[in-house]
Amino acid sequence: MPKLDIAGVLIGANGKSAASGIPVNHLRVGLSAHSSLLSHLLRTLSNRVLPPPLPPPQILALLHLLTSLDTQNHPQNIGCGEREARLASSLLLSRGGLIHGIGRSGDVNEMQPKAAGSSVICCVVKIGVKDLLQNSLKMAFLKKSTVTVLPTCTGLSILLCLLTLKKSSPPTATKVLWCRIDQKSCIKSVQSCGLTLLTVPTKKVNDTVTTDLVALSSLLAFHGSSVLCCITTTSCFAPRVPDDIVSISKILKSKNTPHLINNAYGLQSNFINDMLVQSVNKGRVDYVVSSLDKNFMVPVGGAVVFGPDKGKIKDVGKMYPGRANGRVVEDLFVSLLEVGREGYEELWEYRRRLLPKFVKVFGEVAEANGERLLKTEGNDISFGMTLENFTNEECGDIGSMLFTRCLSGCRVVPTGVSKNIGGEEFRGFGSSTDDYGVCYLTAACAVGMKEREVNEFGKRLDSCLKEVVKKREKRERKKEKEKEKEKEKE
Amino acid sequence: MPKLDIAGVLIGANGKSAASGIPVNHLRVGLSAHSSLLSHLLRTLSNRVLPPPLPPPQILALLHLLTSLDTQNHPQNIGCGEREARLASSLLLSRGGLIHGIGRSGDVNEMQPKAAGSSVICCVVKIGVKDLLQNSLKMAFLKKSTVTVLPTCTGLSILLCLLTLKKSSPPTATKVLWCRIDQKSCIKSVQSCGLTLLTVPTKKVNDTVTTDLVALSSLLAFHGSSVLCCITTTSCFAPRVPDDIVSISKILKSKNTPHLINNAYGLQSNFINDMLVQSVNKGRVDYVVSSLDKNFMVPVGGAVVFGPDKGKIKDVGKMYPGRANGRVVEDLFVSLLEVGREGYEELWEYRRRLLPKFVKVFGEVAEANGERLLKTEGNDISFGMTLENFTNEECGDIGSMLFTRCLSGCRVVPTGVSKNIGGEEFRGFGSSTDDYGVCYLTAACAVGMKEREVNEFGKRLDSCLKEVVKKREKRERKKEKEKEKEKEKE
Amino acid sequence: MPKLDIAGVLIGANGKSAASGIPVNHLRVGLSAHSSLLSHLLRTLSNRVLPPPLPPPQILALLHLLTSLDTQNHPQNIGCGEREARLASSLLLSRGGLIHGIGRSGDVNEMQPKAAGSSVICCVVKIGVKDLLQNSLKMAFLKKSTVTVLPTCTGLSILLCLLTLKKSSPPTATKVLWCRIDQKSCIKSVQSCGLTLLTVPTKKVNDTVTTDLVALSSLLAFHGSSVLCCITTTSCFAPRVPDDIVSISKILKSKNTPHLINNAYGLQSNFINDMLVQSVNKGRVDYVVSSLDKNFMVPVGGAVVFGPDKGKIKDVGKMYPGRANGRVVEDLFVSLLEVGREGYEELWEYRRRLLPKFVKVFGEVAEANGERLLKTEGNDISFGMTLENFTNEECGDIGSMLFTRCLSGCRVVPTGVSKNIGGEEFRGFGSSTDDYGVCYLTAACAVGMKEREVNEFGKRLDSCLKEVVKKREKRERKKEKEKEKEKEKE
Amino acid sequence: MPKLDIAGVLIGANGKSAASGIPVNHLRVGLSAHSSLLSHLLRTLSNRVLPPPLPPPQILALLHLLTSLDTQNHPQNIGCGEREARLASSLLLSRGGLIHGIGRSGDVNEMQPKAAGSSVICCVVKIGVKDLLQNSLKMAFLKKSTVTVLPTCTGLSILLCLLTLKKSSPPTATKVLWCRIDQKSCIKSVQSCGLTLLTVPTKKVNDTVTTDLVALSSLLAFHGSSVLCCITTTSCFAPRVPDDIVSISKILKSKNTPHLINNAYGLQSNFINDMLVQSVNKGRVDYVVSSLDKNFMVPVGGAVVFGPDKGKIKDVGKMYPGRANGRVVEDLFVSLLEVGREGYEELWEYRRRLLPKFVKVFGEVAEANGERLLKTEGNDISFGMTLENFTNEECGDIGSMLFTRCLSGCRVVPTGVSKNIGGEEFRGFGSSTDDYGVCYLTAACAVGMKEREVNEFGKRLDSCLKEVVKKREKRERKKEKEKEKEKEKE
Repeated sequence: MPKLDIAGVLIGANGKSAASGIPVNHLRVGLSAHSSLLSHLLRTLSNRVLPPPLPPPQILALLHLLTSLDTQNHPQNIGCGEREARLASSLLLSRGGLIHGIGRSGDVNEMQPKAAGSSVICCVVKIGVKDLLQNSLKMAFLKKSTVTVLPTCTGLSILLCLLTLKKSSPPTATKVLWCRIDQKSCIKSVQSCGLTLLTVPTKKVNDTVTTDLVALSSLLAFHGSSVLCCITTTSCFAPRVPDDIVSISKILKSKNTPHLINNAYGLQSNFINDMLVQSVNKGRVDYVVSSLDKNFMVPVGGAVVFGPDKGKIKDVGKMYPGRANGRVVEDLFVSLLEVGREGYEELWEYRRRLLPKFVKVFGEVAEANGERLLKTEGNDISFGMTLENFTNEECGDIGSMLFTRCLSGCRVVPTGVSKNIGGEEFRGFGSSTDDYGVCYLTAACAVGMKEREVNEFGKRLDSCLKEVVKKREKRERKKEKEKEKEKEKE
Repeated sequence: MPKLDIAGVLIGANGKSAASGIPVNHLRVGLSAHSSLLSHLLRTLSNRVLPPPLPPPQILALLHLLTSLDTQNHPQNIGCGEREARLASSLLLSRGGLIHGIGRSGDVNEMQPKAAGSSVICCVVKIGVKDLLQNSLKMAFLKKSTVTVLPTCTGLSILLCLLTLKKSSPPTATKVLWCRIDQKSCIKSVQSCGLTLLTVPTKKVNDTVTTDLVALSSLLAFHGSSVLCCITTTSCFAPRVPDDIVSISKILKSKNTPHLINNAYGLQSNFINDMLVQSVNKGRVDYVVSSLDKNFMVPVGGAVVFGPDKGKIKDVGKMYPGRANGRVVEDLFVSLLEVGREGYEELWEYRRRLLPKFVKVFGEVAEANGERLLKTEGNDISFGMTLENFTNEECGDIGSMLFTRCLSGCRVVPTGVSKNIGGEEFRGFGSSTDDYGVCYLTAACAVGMKEREVNEFGKRLDSCLKEVVKKREKRERKKEKEKEKEKEKE
Repeated sequence: MPKLDIAGVLIGANGKSAASGIPVNHLRVGLSAHSSLLSHLLRTLSNRVLPPPLPPPQILALLHLLTSLDTQNHPQNIGCGEREARLASSLLLSRGGLIHGIGRSGDVNEMQPKAAGSSVICCVVKIGVKDLLQNSLKMAFLKKSTVTVLPTCTGLSILLCLLTLKKSSPPTATKVLWCRIDQKSCIKSVQSCGLTLLTVPTKKVNDTVTTDLVALSSLLAFHGSSVLCCITTTSCFAPRVPDDIVSISKILKSKNTPHLINNAYGLQSNFINDMLVQSVNKGRVDYVVSSLDKNFMVPVGGAVVFGPDKGKIKDVGKMYPGRANGRVVEDLFVSLLEVGREGYEELWEYRRRLLPKFVKVFGEVAEANGERLLKTEGNDISFGMTLENFTNEECGDIGSMLFTRCLSGCRVVPTGVSKNIGGEEFRGFGSSTDDYGVCYLTAACAVGMKEREVNEFGKRLDSCLKEVVKKREKRERKKEKEKEKEKEKE
Repeated sequence: MPKLDIAGVLIGANGKSAASGIPVNHLRVGLSAHSSLLSHLLRTLSNRVLPPPLPPPQILALLHLLTSLDTQNHPQNIGCGEREARLASSLLLSRGGLIHGIGRSGDVNEMQPKAAGSSVICCVVKIGVKDLLQNSLKMAFLKKSTVTVLPTCTGLSILLCLLTLKKSSPPTATKVLWCRIDQKSCIKSVQSCGLTLLTVPTKKVNDTVTTDLVALSSLLAFHGSSVLCCITTTSCFAPRVPDDIVSISKILKSKNTPHLINNAYGLQSNFINDMLVQSVNKGRVDYVVSSLDKNFMVPVGGAVVFGPDKGKIKDVGKMYPGRANGRVVEDLFVSLLEVGREGYEELWEYRRRLLPKFVKVFGEVAEANGERLLKTEGNDISFGMTLENFTNEECGDIGSMLFTRCLSGCRVVPTGVSKNIGGEEFRGFGSSTDDYGVCYLTAACAVGMKEREVNEFGKRLDSCLKEVVKKREKRERKKEKEKEKEKEKE
C-alpha cells in the first residue's frame, strides 16, 4: 500500500489539484491544524513532556485516530483468536476507545501487539504523569527513574507493591509495620496479601495525632528481619497529620527496611511533596503510591506508583497478571491533553490560594457555635472542628443531616467507637488514636473545590449545627413543660 | 512547519527508532489501518463513488480528523470576526462536529474557507448520494448532471425549487398546477411562495385515486403561460397512487412547462425509480425532490434535489441565502460511510422482499374482520383496508387506539371531512379525492421495517378492530337490556 | 400500566424495602438530585424562565430522558408509517437526540405527535430564548409577544419573513427598500423571493458609512405602495455603522410601511438593543431577525425572529412547509441549560468589558504602522484601521497572510472593487459605499473572544504588517541595485 | 421537596393542563415509553432477571438518569471530602458515566453512599450476569449462590481468588498445583502471590495434549496439606484440550483440596459448561473465573468469579482493597441491556452453528497444502493444523505474514522453544507439553466471529502458505542455478 497522509489525499502530490475541488489555500490552513497536532504528539514522545493544552476537538481527533489503529478497527481485519476486542453492543462500538485494553499477560506496561494505538496512548500518559511529578511537582529524583500508571485504585496498587516487595525479600519477611491511620483500604491491602499487620501506635500532641516514632523504632528493633516493609501515610484526615516521613525514612534506611508511602491524595500539597523529596534524598523510599482521581481529577480507579529506583517501579507493572482495562488510561490521556501542565499547576495553585479562606470560614462557623478549629499543623488538606457541645447522638444526627443537605465528604467522628477489621481491633476508630477525647467534624479543602463552595459549606454547616441546637432546646422545653405539668398534677 | 504525518511521528524518518518505543511491526499494522482509511477517502474523492462500509471507529476517526481541520479547532487560531464558531457549551464542544456549518452566504454548496474539513464532508456526502442514485438506483441521467443536498425538509426544498423556477420565468408565470395529494407541506410550499395553487382534480378508478390527466391537460391549456410549473407526486398514501409521471412529463414537454416531482419517499421503490428515468428520457423533468430521512434512514430534515439539467440543480443551492447548519450533512456522512452502497441496497432490497408478507398479513387482518384490502396497484409502499363495518366515530376510536398501542404511522381516514388550507377548501380531505365513499385505514411498508414488526402489526391491528366490535356489542347488549327493562316496566 | 417513577422503582411504595438492596438513605440523596432536576424543568415550563445553569450530567440525563419519549424509542413501538425516525447508522442511534425533527407539515412550531419529548425541548428552547431577550436584554415589549426559533440561518429566516409579509400584503407590493450593507445573504434573500431590490444609498460622514435618510425618504415617497417593506441592518462591519433604526422606524410608521431589521449579531450590543426597544416604542418594527450562533455561541444554522406583534411572529413559523431538523434546537437546548441566564449575561458582559482593551490594542498597532483607527462611533462590535501606506496588491497579501497565520475573521477591503450580485452592481463592494477612498482592515470584538486573544491579535497583526513593509523595502533595494548596475553598465 | 416525577411535571396533577401546552395524548404515549423502561428496571431488580433488549436511546436515558443520581451530579452538591469525583476535563464530564467508581474501601461489592446510581448499575450487572450463567448457560447450582463481577482481568481475578483461599487456609499451604497450560497470566498470578508453582505435566495422546491425571494424583499425595489449591484450565489453545475437570474435581474432593478453574473464555462452549455443572455436582469446585470480554464481548478488563458456595464468592469481593474504576461495570451494563438474554443466547448459538463450517474451511486449507487438521476433540473453540512441510524459520515467517495481512489471533508454534517465566523453565513452550514433535498453527472460532470472516480466513491463510512455498521454490531454483553455474565454472 503506497504511503498516504491526509494532506496527500486532500491536496494531492502536485499540490495543485485536489480531487475534492476545495481551494488549496483553505485546505492548507486546515491541514496546518492537523500538522500542529501531530507535532505536539511528536514533541511529547521525543522530549518526554506534556504538550500545551489542546482544544477538545483536537483531542477527539487524536484519540479516535490512535484507537483506529488497533487491529480490531482495521477495515480488513479478520479475528482468529480467542480475544479479538469485538463488541456486542453498538452503543459501546460507537463510543470508541481502548477496547483491547493495555498491557500483555506478563506486564501491564508492555506494548500490546494488537493495539498499537493503545500503546501510544499509554506512552503519552506515562510521559505526562512523569512530567507533572518531575517538573511541576519538583520531584527531581524521577529524572533517572520512572513511574508506573496502574488501572487499579490506591489500595490494590499498594497490594501489588507489597507483593513485589515480598517477591524480592526472604520468605521470613512477613510483617508489615503500619503507622496507624484509620482508613480501611490500606489495612485490607496488607491483610489480603496474607501479611501480618503490626500497627505502630500514634500519639496525641496537643490537637494533632501523629505516629509515635519511638514506638516505631522499638517495633522495628524487636521484629527485625521479619519486617517486610514499613507503610507510612502522608495524606490523611485531621486531626491525624502526615507522617514525618523524612525522619522515618532515615530510620528505615539505617535499618535497611523497605519503605512504602501511602500518598493517596498528597500530590496536591507542596508541603508533602517537599517531604517526599527530602525522604528520598536523605532516607529510604521504595514506593510512593498516589491516587489518580484525587490528584488529577479523573474518574476513580487509577494510581501512580513512583520512587527513586527505576527497576523497582517497573517490577510493579510486571506483577499485574494479564491485560488491563483501558478506560483508566484513556480518561487520563484525555484529561492530561485537555488540562495540560499549566492547567494542572493552576488547579493545584488555586487550591493553595483557597486554603486561608477555607480555614477562615471553617473557623468562623466553629466559633459561632461555641467550638474551635483543631490545630493540626502539617495537614493542609483536611481540617477539623470540635463538637464538644454536642452529645454523641447529636453528632450522629449532624453527620446524616450534612449528607442529606448535599454537603458530601464531611466526616463526624464520635468518641468511643471500636471497630474490628479483619481480626484487628481498633479503639477510637476514625480518629487514628485510641482515645481522642472529643467528638469532631472534618472537612477537606481538596483540589477542585471552588471559592463559591467554601462559602456555601460555611453557611450550610452553620445552619445545620444551629438546627441541632434548636431541636435540643425544643426537646428540653417540652421536657420542662411536662415536668411542670407533672408538678402541677402533684 | 515541516510536513508531518502520523506514520512519520510514530515510526520516524529512518523507519527504525520510534520515540514511543513501540515495536515498529506493531505500528505498521496499525498504520496500515489508517492508510487504508485514507485510501478509501482518496478513492471516494477521485472516483466519485462511496467507499465500502467502514467500521464505526474508523468513521469516528475520519469525522473527528476532518472537523479538527476547521479553523476554530486550530490550536493557534485567534478569531477576529463576528462569527468564529465558538461554543458556549462544553457539552457541545465535546461532541464535536460541523460547528461552522456549510456553504457561504451566496451558495449553500460553496466551500467554506473557515471550514475545510466541513467542505470535504460536504463533498463526500454529495458524491455518496449521487452514487446511490446514479448507480444503485440506476438513474443514468445523473451521469452528466449533479445532485444538491439541502439541509431543509422536502417541503422547504420544494419551496426553494419553486423560487428558483420563478427567478428564471417571466413574472406572469404565477400559477402552480398541482395534482391533488392530501398532504399539507406541498400546498404550504406553493402558498408560502405567494404563488397561486391550481388543483388538478383526481379521479377514482375502482379502488385507486389518481390524477385526472384530461383535467390536467385542459387546465394547462386554459392557463397557458401563466403556469410556472406542474407539481406531481410519486410517493403517497393509498388509495392515492403515484402520478403517471411518464405521461404527464410528455404533456409538459409538449407544452414547454416545467415539471417538479415531489418524490418524498419514492427512492425506495423501483417502480417509481423506473418511472423517473422514463420521464426524464421521454418527457420533461426539472426537479425531483426526495427526503433524506425517509429514504436513507437519517434524522428528519434534509432533502436531495436532482434532475437531468446540471445548471438547474446547482441553481437551487444558490437560492439558499447564507450558511446552513451542518448537522444534517454530518449525520448523512456518518450514515453513508457506515452503511455503504451495499448496505443501502440491502435495506431497500429487504423492503421489497418484505412486501408480499406485509400485504398478506394486512389482507388477512382485513378479511378476518369482514373487510378487504384496497386494490391500489402502482403504490407499493402504502396500503389500505376498508373500514366499511365501522361508523365514522368508531373509525376515530380505532385511530387513537392504534396510537396509544404504539402502532405509529397508521392513518384512519373517515368520510366526509372537509379542510381549509390557506384559503383552499378540500372536500374528503385525507383521501385525495372529494368523496372516496368509504372509511379506510392505511399502513406503510417502508424501508427499515422488520419482519417481526409486520407480524406484530397484524396482531395488534386485529386485536384492536376486534375490541371495537366487542365494545359495540356490549353497548348494544346494554341497550337491548335497557329496552327489555323498559318493556318490562311497561 | 401502573404509574411508575424512578423513586418508586428504587425505594418502593413502603419506603423501606428496595429490591436493589441499596440503603434507602443513599437512594434518597440521589433521588433528591433527580427531583431537583425535575423541579427545575417544572419551574421552567410554569414560570417561563430559564433554570439556573445545570451540571452537564444532569443535562444529559434530561436530554436523553426527553428524547426517549419519542415514539420511535418506545420499546414496544411498531412503525407503520412512511416516516418512522428509524436510523440506518448505529453511530447515530448511539448518539441519540431529536431524530423525529420538530414541527409538523403546517407549522414548524406545532407539536409533533410522534415526538412528545422533542416538543418539550422546543418549548424549553422558546422559553429560554424569550427569557434572555425579554429579561437579560431588557426587551420589555416581548412580554405580550413571542419569539420564533427557526432552524434556518439568518438569511433564510429573512426570506421566510419576506414571504410572510408578502402573503398579507397587496400583490402590487413587490419592492424591498434595502439600506445598503455589503453582505451577500440579505440581498440573496430578497432576490430569491423574486422581489425587486431598491438599494438605499449610504453616505460617508467623516470615517463612518451610514444610510442616507433623505434618500430613503424620497425612495419611499417615490415607490409608495409598491414597497413591501424596508430592511435595515444593525450589526455590520466597520466603517458601516448600525442604521439609525429609531429614526427609520418613525418614518416607516408614518408611511405605514413594514420594517424588517437584520440584527444578525446585534444582540450582544446593548447600544443596539436600546435602539431596538426605542424603535418598537416610537416607530414601526415588524420583524427582527437575529442569528443564534453569533449571539448565543451555538453551531451555525439557527435564528430567532421576534417583534412586538405576536401574531406576525407566529405567522413566520407557519410559513415553514414541513417538519425541520431537530439538531439546531437540541444544541440550543443543551447550551441554554448549561450556560443559563447568568452565564449568558456574563459572556455578553465580558465582551463589553473587553472592548476598551480591544480598541486600545488595535489602535496601537495602527499607530505603530503609521496608520490610524477609523472613528466609527455607533459600531461597538466591528472596528477598522486604515491601510493608507499599502498598495492594493499589498492589501491583498495582508489578507491572505492573516488567514494562513490563523487570524481568522479579519477582512481587508481594497478600494475600487465592483461586484455584481444577481444582476445588481455594487461599486466599492465591501465598504458599503461607492467609494470609501482608502483601503482598510476590519476586525471584530465579538462575544466569546478572550483577553488573551486580543493580545495575540495585536502581535500577529503588527508582525504581519511589518513583514509586508520589509518585503517591499527588500524589493525596492533590489530594484535600486539593479538600476545602479544598469547605470554602471552604461 | 415535594415528590416529583416526569409525568407529574409534563402532565400535571389534574391530568389536564400541561404547563408545556403539549397535547396530553402525545405526552401519554411518550410517558408510557418511560414507564415501560422503569417497569423493566423494576422487574430486573425484583425478579432478578435481565430485561428484554432495550433500544439504545432507552439505555442512554437509563444510564444517564442513574448516573445523575450520584452526589457529584446533584445541582446543590458541595464537596467537602478528599474525593468528590470532580473532573478536570470537560470532555470527560460531557461523556458522563460512573465517575465515583464502585465499591467501598472494604469491599468492591459494597454500596457506595456517594453514588446511589452506580450502586443500582452494579446491582443490575450482577443480576444480569447471574441470570445468563444460571439460566442461559444452565448452571443451576447458582440458584443458591452468587457471582462476583470484578473490574480486573482474569489473571488478577485469579490472584484475588488465590489470596482469598490463602486467607482461610493454614499458613503452611503455600503450593499451587497447576495443570500446565502455556499461557503466562495464570503462572504470573501464582508467582505474584508468592506461592510455589507445582506444575502438573501434560501428556500427548494422539494429537491432543491433556493433563496427566496420574501425575496430578501423585503430586497431590506427595505434597499433601502444603497444597493450597489446584488450578485447572478449561479454555485453551489447541492441541491442549480442556482439563477433565469432572475427574479432577472428584480427586480434589476426596483429598479435600480447593479447586480453582481458569475458565477464561469457556462460557461460550456448552461442552465446558456441562463439565462445570458436573464438576460442581460430583466433585469440588471453589472458584470458576471467566473473562467478561471474551465471553460477553465487552472491552477487555473484567471477570466474573462464581462457584457453588455463596460465602466464598462474596469473600473475593472483600479482598479488593478500595473502590474500583466504574467503566468496566458501566460498559457491561450497557451491553447487557442492549443485547439482552436472547441476544447473548443467539450470539453463542451462532458460534456453535458456525463451528462445522470453520472446521471444514480450516481442514480444506490444511489438506490443500499437504497438511492436516489436528484431532483435538474436546476443544471446540481453538483448532490447529500441522505445519510439517515447513521449517521452523518458515513457520516464523508465516506468523508475521498472517499478522501483517490482518489475520489477527493466529498462533504459529514452532518446536523446540524453551521459555523461563519467573524462574520456572518450560520446554516446548507454547504447546503446553515438552515436545509436541511438530510445528503447528492455531486459530479459534470464538464468539463474535462471522461466517464471512471464516471464508476470508481460509483464503488468506491458504494464500499465505502458498506464498511461503513459492518463496522457498524460488530460493531453491536460485540455488540450483548457482550450483549449475559453479559446476559450469568448474
